[in-house]
Amino acid sequence: MILELNKNTSESLVNEIAQKHEAIVVNETNAYVLITPSKLKTSLPEYKQYIIKEVAVPDDIQLASKLYRSEKREIKIADHLIIGGNTHNTVMITGPCSVESEEQITQAAELCVKLGVKVLRAGAYKPRTSPYSFQGMGIEGLRLLDKMRNQYGLKIISEVRDSTHVQDIIDHVDIIQIGAKAMYDHGILRAAGKSGKPVLLKRGFGTTLQEFVQSAEFILSGGNPNVILCERGIRTFETKTRFTLDLCGVSFLKEYTNLPVILDPSHAIGYAYGVPDLTRACIAMGIDGLLIETHPNPKVAKSDAAQQLNFEEFTALYKSVDTVAKAVGYKIV
Amino acid sequence: MILELNKNTSESLVNEIAQKHEAIVVNETNAYVLITPSKLKTSLPEYKQYIIKEVAVPDDIQLASKLYRSEKREIKIADHLIIGGNTHNTVMITGPCSVESEEQITQAAELCVKLGVKVLRAGAYKPRTSPYSFQGMGIEGLRLLDKMRNQYGLKIISEVRDSTHVQDIIDHVDIIQIGAKAMYDHGILRAAGKSGKPVLLKRGFGTTLQEFVQSAEFILSGGNPNVILCERGIRTFETKTRFTLDLCGVSFLKEYTNLPVILDPSHAIGYAYGVPDLTRACIAMGIDGLLIETHPNPKVAKSDAAQQLNFEEFTALYKSVDTVAKAVGYKIV
Amino acid sequence: MILELNKNTSESLVNEIAQKHEAIVVNETNAYVLITPSKLKTSLPEYKQYIIKEVAVPDDIQLASKLYRSEKREIKIADHLIIGGNTHNTVMITGPCSVESEEQITQAAELCVKLGVKVLRAGAYKPRTSPYSFQGMGIEGLRLLDKMRNQYGLKIISEVRDSTHVQDIIDHVDIIQIGAKAMYDHGILRAAGKSGKPVLLKRGFGTTLQEFVQSAEFILSGGNPNVILCERGIRTFETKTRFTLDLCGVSFLKEYTNLPVILDPSHAIGYAYGVPDLTRACIAMGIDGLLIETHPNPKVAKSDAAQQLNFEEFTALYKSVDTVAKAVGYKIV
Amino acid sequence: MILELNKNTSESLVNEIAQKHEAIVVNETNAYVLITPSKLKTSLPEYKQYIIKEVAVPDDIQLASKLYRSEKREIKIADHLIIGGNTHNTVMITGPCSVESEEQITQAAELCVKLGVKVLRAGAYKPRTSPYSFQGMGIEGLRLLDKMRNQYGLKIISEVRDSTHVQDIIDHVDIIQIGAKAMYDHGILRAAGKSGKPVLLKRGFGTTLQEFVQSAEFILSGGNPNVILCERGIRTFETKTRFTLDLCGVSFLKEYTNLPVILDPSHAIGYAYGVPDLTRACIAMGIDGLLIETHPNPKVAKSDAAQQLNFEEFTALYKSVDTVAKAVGYKIV
Repeated sequence: MILELNKNTSESLVNEIAQKHEAIVVNETNAYVLITPSKLKTSLPEYKQYIIKEVAVPDDIQLASKLYRSEKREIKIADHLIIGGNTHNTVMITGPCSVESEEQITQAAELCVKLGVKVLRAGAYKPRTSPYSFQGMGIEGLRLLDKMRNQYGLKIISEVRDSTHVQDIIDHVDIIQIGAKAMYDHGILRAAGKSGKPVLLKRGFGTTLQEFVQSAEFILSGGNPNVILCERGIRTFETKTRFTLDLCGVSFLKEYTNLPVILDPSHAIGYAYGVPDLTRACIAMGIDGLLIETHPNPKVAKSDAAQQLNFEEFTALYKSVDTVAKAVGYKIV
Repeated sequence: MILELNKNTSESLVNEIAQKHEAIVVNETNAYVLITPSKLKTSLPEYKQYIIKEVAVPDDIQLASKLYRSEKREIKIADHLIIGGNTHNTVMITGPCSVESEEQITQAAELCVKLGVKVLRAGAYKPRTSPYSFQGMGIEGLRLLDKMRNQYGLKIISEVRDSTHVQDIIDHVDIIQIGAKAMYDHGILRAAGKSGKPVLLKRGFGTTLQEFVQSAEFILSGGNPNVILCERGIRTFETKTRFTLDLCGVSFLKEYTNLPVILDPSHAIGYAYGVPDLTRACIAMGIDGLLIETHPNPKVAKSDAAQQLNFEEFTALYKSVDTVAKAVGYKIV
Repeated sequence: MILELNKNTSESLVNEIAQKHEAIVVNETNAYVLITPSKLKTSLPEYKQYIIKEVAVPDDIQLASKLYRSEKREIKIADHLIIGGNTHNTVMITGPCSVESEEQITQAAELCVKLGVKVLRAGAYKPRTSPYSFQGMGIEGLRLLDKMRNQYGLKIISEVRDSTHVQDIIDHVDIIQIGAKAMYDHGILRAAGKSGKPVLLKRGFGTTLQEFVQSAEFILSGGNPNVILCERGIRTFETKTRFTLDLCGVSFLKEYTNLPVILDPSHAIGYAYGVPDLTRACIAMGIDGLLIETHPNPKVAKSDAAQQLNFEEFTALYKSVDTVAKAVGYKIV
Repeated sequence: MILELNKNTSESLVNEIAQKHEAIVVNETNAYVLITPSKLKTSLPEYKQYIIKEVAVPDDIQLASKLYRSEKREIKIADHLIIGGNTHNTVMITGPCSVESEEQITQAAELCVKLGVKVLRAGAYKPRTSPYSFQGMGIEGLRLLDKMRNQYGLKIISEVRDSTHVQDIIDHVDIIQIGAKAMYDHGILRAAGKSGKPVLLKRGFGTTLQEFVQSAEFILSGGNPNVILCERGIRTFETKTRFTLDLCGVSFLKEYTNLPVILDPSHAIGYAYGVPDLTRACIAMGIDGLLIETHPNPKVAKSDAAQQLNFEEFTALYKSVDTVAKAVGYKIV
């Protein structure tokens, strides 16, 4: 259950109610928002005079639920770059899997500038399966991304792999990306909850939609309302493709949650050949953004070589997406 | 390996080669096509003078492979209704899950006529999970579908549930549908292989892409080249939606096979709310057709009540699909 | 809901009730058993005088439910070979994947005789994925199995692949096996329902436990009470093994259904190396039987070469199973 | 590739080779062990005089591979409590899901003492799906576990949820448990690699066997050879049980890796009714240990209430396991 109490409520009463009902308190500008375990479903008439709003939800999807807030949340990435709400914007985000060198990330940044893409993605800490593979450039990679922001005016998104560098990521990016393998990590979720920056939360490949949204609840109830969900493919029995992009799940998220949704078709299929068709399919769902991997020379990429588009392929794709977005009432930003 | 032998080859030699290499023979107009188990990979120089074409494939995807025929197969549903090849047509197919009564199917047929939809779908033999649920009207249902064809000029597609009525389906429909639970059935596949009618083969919900295309090989190698693949959602760990529509798999099928692909978003998500968004996503993939369930009154439907659109919802959807198709160079037929 | 009506009830009344409540009627020796769609949950006081028993079940698991019959069903394979009930017997069934020749099947039969195994398994109609692979010896294979029965006194189990030969299987075997790819086939399920012979129903690799038991309901409600469930591995994301043996599912079946359960570890793992350990694990669950694939020379087997044990491996395994069975209060028969 | 260099090799040469081949170095008592990315497969004759052993492996399973060390690793939990190697010991570990109070954990400890169980399990930091559920007692819980060690002589295992408390866990436990949701976390894996304590690494529910063993490689190559793998159920389409225990996977791990394997049937099925049968099945596989959840009063448990055995159930189970272990040549310790 979610209780919104007005600001006339004394802090001691807020704390008393919170303690009694095991609630988490979010201190918003216009209200104290208390979220109790979802098993509490009955109203609390004894506090009637303080209650602005009282919403019982059927399960642990609470702040993210349309039952609580029916309109989609608006997320400001930059003053002139807003998604969600009523914007009907689909933000294009592109760049290489990993920062590999200044030359490589500069080429990617220049492609963005040339085409008008406003957000650059690249990993500095790579969540690799094997200890014997390239693990990312670390803080050095983040500094190169800072340079791209300063030099080209691009916004930056990069991924937290584990808690040891979560603060570095928060300090250096414009959108904090929490990866598919880190999205259950309470330490990371709580750190993201304390930051005010937009957070792109990726769905784990073995994660149900219920758990996915519950991970978002950790950030939302931590005080950060700027959460974007990212579907990037789930693991199924099918092995001809790397993962299975779950667009049925995207329908569910759009229907039942108030969070913007960004899609990552590159990781889903894992092969460059399918990225253009899938990207257009994603856009036709009416979504808030896309993450597409591009690399100046995918063949020599240190990670995810098979799925990155080269610049020519990405350029061709990018030129085709506007009409698809328009066909469903959206525009690419 | 696939061998095409010219028509000057004597039948006895054809049979001799076939026997020696355990090959299946398809007698086409311009060639004898012999398909051996895919482990045979070396050429057969001793028959050089008869061989038109010789293709070694890496696995048991043979006649369906782009390595054998790189262009997409063209399928004629009616004289003026062709999909695949270079048509860039996306055929819309709609109708109720099951034929329930003359009144109900007539309403569906009239909706098709009103909107310009040319193919009517409805089940007569329902593959139900429970013996205690409605099992379909059987042959009586097929007769009602015949009536719709005669009265409204619609083409008819209906599903084979099991071998006991496969001939009835073949006799009464324009497109033979082999359902997700029947798609491994050799008896049905062979019967479909002997018919010249277009066959829509649904992917089983637990079926890999490899096995799916191999099922198509049973029909193709049985002598029927008119096979359409239909992705309708696979079973994954996610239960908020009925199944998971596998568009990554569709990318694979488009890249590696020469068979047209039709998508069924209704069965995939299992809930009407998501069908419009998913339908537009499917179209944006650049596909050959769609199966969408509609019902004059979904609430009283005897099967699949939750996922069928009512006529108003379908009409609104139908009006939105043309611009999406155009955005990717296709048109709805 | 299940209603048992006493035999004094007139047939016309039975039919009237059945029609009114869309029930299937099973005519048993001591009662008419009517099974209605499970949505009917309220009792029918108007027929009070005829009702012996009235059981409302929560879902479409009805005749198989412990709520209806709490004791495990007893299945007689031969006069002196009974499983289920209170027997605590675990029947060992072994033999090759396919009948390949008289010599091969005779060797398998002789191994059974030598070790004391009483039931011989072998496929005559193979449900292959590819049309270009060995499809089984067909009726010729069944005749060889007949010969083994006559010559060695073994009981025979063999699999129905599709409806076209269901009657041949029913005529030639002692236990009708319905395979994982055929277990949704209404035609086969109904034919098995009309036969009185024991039926071993395999779970499809993409089939939920709910659907699996519902398939059994087709046979049970068709009048054949002798249904054995067979878990043989489900398809998951894991590909190092062929399938994933679902022993949690076996726990569920033992807890909630009254049907005996036989396990097939050979198909589950797909590799001979794991069969001995898995077989012993299965036995330690307390189960009614095992299907283990053995072949005189697995390397040259025409199907499933990787997973068949050779005779030495099977003999070693067979010698180890008795003490495991005893440790859980069962005995190998 | 793995290279073992003798201790006469100069450190500078070790570092030179490591750098040249992107190798990780483990400094063992008798050798420098260098592990290169597995793509390196050719031998290095130029260092012939220093090389003790040189093993090329086909994939990124290296130190854990039987190709490198064919005998199962021996892990010492206490002076008189050893598993793996040639011990044929199956260690029983039990206790509640979470430490909830001193009274509760004392009851659990006393049950262990009474039955002769030597290792007590209980969580202090719970990896919960919802931020609105009980999150564990934290450091206070660890202190209570210390008390149990001191008072009852039990060994303690407890789980790391995230990096923020990894050092607390390492300091307070005898076996470091890395949970299913944390097993990709490089920060935690590296911290565990630096510790010399035994590590129980749980398989993620969406994790392939390949990735699972690769996670173990992070710890092994970090210098800690004491890694135990724990299978606890994977996520599949089946929802009647919480997860699906993957015993086929256990066969694979036993066949191809040199790491001991412990099983957790409680989390796999998620319901107490199935735990006894599954436990006996696990033991019959021939394994190195078991994690079984017990609680003095499962109905009031703050987490995992459905799957914990009460003391009477656990006692009955415990009395049945010895004969099963003996039947496969193992003994319960």
